[in-house]
Amino acid sequence: MSAARETPADTIAAVATPPGRGGVGIVRVSGPQSRLVASRLFLSPRPGFSGLRPYILHHGSLRAPSGRIIDEAMAAYMPGPGSYTGEDTVEFFCHGSPAVLRAVLAAAFAYGARPAGPGEFTRRAYVNGRLDLSQAEAVAELVAARGDAQADMALVRLSGGMGQAARELGLALDDLRASVCLAVDFPDDEVECLPKKSFGAGVSAVIDRVETLLAAHRRARPFREGARVALFGRVNAGKSSLFNALLGTDRALVADVPGTTRDYLEEGLDLDGLPVNLTDTAGLRQTLDAVEQAGKARGLALAGTAALGLYVVDGSVPFAPDAEAEELVAALGPDRVLGVVAKADLPAATPAPGDILAIRGLESVAVSARTGHGLAGLLTAIRTRLTRDAGLPEPETPAPSDREAACLVATRDELLALLGDIRDDLPYDLLGVRLEAASLALADITGETSADDVLNAVFSKFCIGK
Amino acid sequence: MSAARETPADTIAAVATPPGRGGVGIVRVSGPQSRLVASRLFLSPRPGFSGLRPYILHHGSLRAPSGRIIDEAMAAYMPGPGSYTGEDTVEFFCHGSPAVLRAVLAAAFAYGARPAGPGEFTRRAYVNGRLDLSQAEAVAELVAARGDAQADMALVRLSGGMGQAARELGLALDDLRASVCLAVDFPDDEVECLPKKSFGAGVSAVIDRVETLLAAHRRARPFREGARVALFGRVNAGKSSLFNALLGTDRALVADVPGTTRDYLEEGLDLDGLPVNLTDTAGLRQTLDAVEQAGKARGLALAGTAALGLYVVDGSVPFAPDAEAEELVAALGPDRVLGVVAKADLPAATPAPGDILAIRGLESVAVSARTGHGLAGLLTAIRTRLTRDAGLPEPETPAPSDREAACLVATRDELLALLGDIRDDLPYDLLGVRLEAASLALADITGETSADDVLNAVFSKFCIGK
Repeated sequence: MSAARETPADTIAAVATPPGRGGVGIVRVSGPQSRLVASRLFLSPRPGFSGLRPYILHHGSLRAPSGRIIDEAMAAYMPGPGSYTGEDTVEFFCHGSPAVLRAVLAAAFAYGARPAGPGEFTRRAYVNGRLDLSQAEAVAELVAARGDAQADMALVRLSGGMGQAARELGLALDDLRASVCLAVDFPDDEVECLPKKSFGAGVSAVIDRVETLLAAHRRARPFREGARVALFGRVNAGKSSLFNALLGTDRALVADVPGTTRDYLEEGLDLDGLPVNLTDTAGLRQTLDAVEQAGKARGLALAGTAALGLYVVDGSVPFAPDAEAEELVAALGPDRVLGVVAKADLPAATPAPGDILAIRGLESVAVSARTGHGLAGLLTAIRTRLTRDAGLPEPETPAPSDREAACLVATRDELLALLGDIRDDLPYDLLGVRLEAASLALADITGETSADDVLNAVFSKFCIGK
Repeated sequence: MSAARETPADTIAAVATPPGRGGVGIVRVSGPQSRLVASRLFLSPRPGFSGLRPYILHHGSLRAPSGRIIDEAMAAYMPGPGSYTGEDTVEFFCHGSPAVLRAVLAAAFAYGARPAGPGEFTRRAYVNGRLDLSQAEAVAELVAARGDAQADMALVRLSGGMGQAARELGLALDDLRASVCLAVDFPDDEVECLPKKSFGAGVSAVIDRVETLLAAHRRARPFREGARVALFGRVNAGKSSLFNALLGTDRALVADVPGTTRDYLEEGLDLDGLPVNLTDTAGLRQTLDAVEQAGKARGLALAGTAALGLYVVDGSVPFAPDAEAEELVAALGPDRVLGVVAKADLPAATPAPGDILAIRGLESVAVSARTGHGLAGLLTAIRTRLTRDAGLPEPETPAPSDREAACLVATRDELLALLGDIRDDLPYDLLGVRLEAASLALADITGETSADDVLNAVFSKFCIGK
């Protein structure tokens, strides 16, 4: 247990519910003085009341140091270690009024608590061994989840799935280290106690398991970050109508003031749990205006980094190649471009623009923004493309966070280097050093050995009150 | 008990915490099926768990109909009538994630609850006699409170202060009615059983008590609505600098793009519990531009409705009358105008502009936005002016809402008419009719006799989840 895991001696307080007005707002107090704070703040109407009993909701009123009654509220005392933080905790369930919550918090501070920093309650839960670092991260991911798929991934980690996977890998590494130690201690044993071949096979097996987790991390990425899907194509090809039709609103049209310097429009879509940021780049048009040119350049750069480009062509007029669209298709590659033949409600041109896209290796979908024809199919095609390489998250495999993936990559790289060392016939004690480094990298996942800067990085992402 | 107070048979559910992300989000379920909903949603890790015990916080997980685990959460069951609504209620304390709360709510609906309308939980509390209508209104006022003063006023009403005042008045009216009945039953009694003079005095005493409550309503108004304070004066008199200095920010300056068509800037200030909307009208300047003229006209109209105007004059240059400023002073009247002699850090002009304002009957305060001189005094003068007529709210007198004040006015008007009837020597049975009308108007305060449309008006102001 590092210095970062010493139990704090002070008591923290914060509003735990989202900011704003609502039916209920919660003030959470955690630390050794929580009960004392509660005994000063909370007044029970019951005769003979002798303090909050554990895990019981009590109704009463809250009193400021001035004697002023701040609110009628419920209070609950959760003694450590049986609380979220693992410390004595008291929660006050107040009316969801910013004025009330401010006053309750001020009273808690007057009675000995201090303001909690971002994620400080969860950090205490980690310090007190209630959560490992992976679970703590999962709390932040769950609160920030953009859809059910991400919430599910966060829950697998919150229930300890990642910690368990890391511990199992750690045990496998321990077995390998034990056999190395044996070989170091008895180097001259007649029977080779560590056959290089089976040892290498054991290392490879661990690498495979690490790769499985890294694949889950890659699969999870679009569900966590949202995938950018960029519409591009000639002016009047039907991009804006398609953008609006996909979003089901008139928003882009309303904001579409000719001559404004906007670079692009971006809106969020939820494709069955997959969050998509749909982007309408400024029309690719020939113009001499410097500001528009700058905006267009930024739009093109953005489209070039999209997970998927939708190349919108007007199906009712003959296909005409466009230098900038061609540039984007080349930059993205055919796997990251889907053709959209727009205005399918109008008679098709000859030759059909969709056929020309097909000849050039681009899959395309015919749609009409006006009638809605083909829109559902387009959305399915988008989702399929975006998850084709990555695949769907598997509920039973935890999806590591970026931080955890970095730990896994470091673990894997040590093990790959170890395989090289085995091939090079390096001495056993050097192999043992590699294994130890791999174990250390792995342990960072659950934070057993994590330094303060790692912890600060994890908890700085939290909101205050969590 | 009217039809509106029949106990509902269905079960409602909503998110009770403010929208957005936070540490904790609450889903509240109320109605006869609450426990059933909870038994399906909530899974306890404890062996032998046999359902939520009343008022105990239980830790477990929440399960969707698909079997998917939605969240790790706490749950509490509050059996009726010992709950907020007076019905069986279950609350789920979840992670404060919109995705999670949406899923929990969807599960609650799948298990038999329906979406709650705005204020429906509080309406049920009223229907079940847990709160009177005045207390229900106080809940909405408390959640919306703009400052401590308003929160305090709401709490006095929430604790039943207004209901008690109304009941006491009702008893006094009942006494008067009893004496009228006596006079009707024994009209020919030798001794006049209802001396007109003392009866009239009794009515007047009740009127005085109603007026005391109406005065509290008037005093409360600025603390509830916020008072608009408008800065006006010539261009370059120092209005914008003063506006920024009073707000302690550079906000107006940043937004002050010459030639924009904005009509005015408005920002909130908290003067020791008194919310103030500080307004900087567009400079009164001579211009031919039509848009600016329109903006100016709107600015002037706004200033004309302010609770207080601050007439800003430059103290460093000789006072020059300005037609539009004079118009505003005349419209507001000297009681609603405070002079502000700006740029007090510069040498004063001769004669001093402050002296000229004084000659014209306007109190003035010298300030320097640059050095901060006089700003605190100006804020005190503003607060004093705004509360001079109304006075401070008195903690011991409940401040009626607008709706309650209308009930009190109706009560008072009946009683005033009654005094006229007494003077006109109308027969006792007609006096009794007046008294009954007064009692009915009064009863609307607590909602004992309120019609559905009154209730709809009260509860439509609530957020969903309360």
